Amino acid sequence: MKVRVTVMLKDGVLDPQGKAIGHALQTLGFDGVQDVRVGKIIELDVPGASADEVREKAQAMARDLLANLVIEDFSVEVAA
Amino acid sequence: MKVRVTVMLKDGVLDPQGKAIGHALQTLGFDGVQDVRVGKIIELDVPGASADEVREKAQAMARDLLANLVIEDFSVEVAA
Repeated sequence: MKVRVTVMLKDGVLDPQGKAIGHALQTLGFDGVQDVRVGKIIELDVPGASADEVREKAQAMARDLLANLVIEDFSVEVAA
Repeated sequence: MKVRVTVMLKDGVLDPQGKAIGHALQTLGFDGVQDVRVGKIIELDVPGASADEVREKAQAMARDLLANLVIEDFSVEVAA
């Protein structure tokens, strides 16, 4: 089953990459852009008999590898 | 308005990061995981009078900066 894991920095964690993009956008003439936050998407094909089983596996993968739980949150979407 | 720009590698473009994650997951005991693809999410707050105006601005930002159109595709979602 196709799974999408979205990993974003927790609120309050400084996002230098986002800040850099914000400045670059302003330099390109895109004024007024705020709160730029950058995250990751990991799409995978995970074997499993049910969406619940696949979701649990993907959450375990996120906890173990895909996200740094100290500074990042993650969400899991299983394609229907 | 809140906007989410999702940037993924085009199909057919080699994804070494995805391959590395796939191998690491296997090492951790997650067998059978395939087609691991990694992308970026950029969330921004973009000024504009309407969702259409904001979407057009965000698409221009993606074309100009956020995505490398040679190897990446992007999609834009404007929060209602």
